[in-house]
Amino acid sequence: MNYFVEINIMPHKALLDPQGKAVSNGLHSIGFSALDNVRVGKHITFEVEAASAQDAEKMAEEACKKLLANQVMEYFEIKVSEPA
Amino acid sequence: MNYFVEINIMPHKALLDPQGKAVSNGLHSIGFSALDNVRVGKHITFEVEAASAQDAEKMAEEACKKLLANQVMEYFEIKVSEPA
Repeated sequence: MNYFVEINIMPHKALLDPQGKAVSNGLHSIGFSALDNVRVGKHITFEVEAASAQDAEKMAEEACKKLLANQVMEYFEIKVSEPA
Repeated sequence: MNYFVEINIMPHKALLDPQGKAVSNGLHSIGFSALDNVRVGKHITFEVEAASAQDAEKMAEEACKKLLANQVMEYFEIKVSEPA
C-alpha cells in the first residue's frame, strides 16, 4: 500500500539555532514582538510503498538516520498517514 | 496566553522541487527504492503570546505572508497548540 510520510527535522532544543535567531530578529523588526523562541528546521514529505504503516515508519526512520538528519545536531519526528 | 505554533512551508505541488529531487536521488542510491515524490520544505516553530488560539493563528498567517513564505513559490500550513 501507498503511505504518505511527513518528517520534521529540527535542531536539538539544547543547541543554538542561528537561522531561527535570524528569523526571530526579522519578525521582531517588522513588529511581531509577541513571538519568541523561533526555531527553523526541515519538513520533508514523500510517498512510500510499504506493507503496513509500521513498515513505512521504519523505512522513514532508517532514511532519517542514514541520510536526512544529522543526529549530532538534529532530532526528527515522523508522521505516517494514508493518502486521501 | 502562550501558544505553540508550528508552520510548514512547502514548494507548491505544481512546481519542480530540485532539493526534493536531490534527496530522492540520494535515497534511491542508498537502496530506498520504494520512496517517491520527495519534497523538501521548512518547518518553523515558535511561541507566541496571544489572547486566543485564533489570534495566534492570525499572527502566524501574517508572519508567513510578510516574511516567512514566498507565496509565488510556496504554500504554508499552520498548526497552533497549547504548550504542555
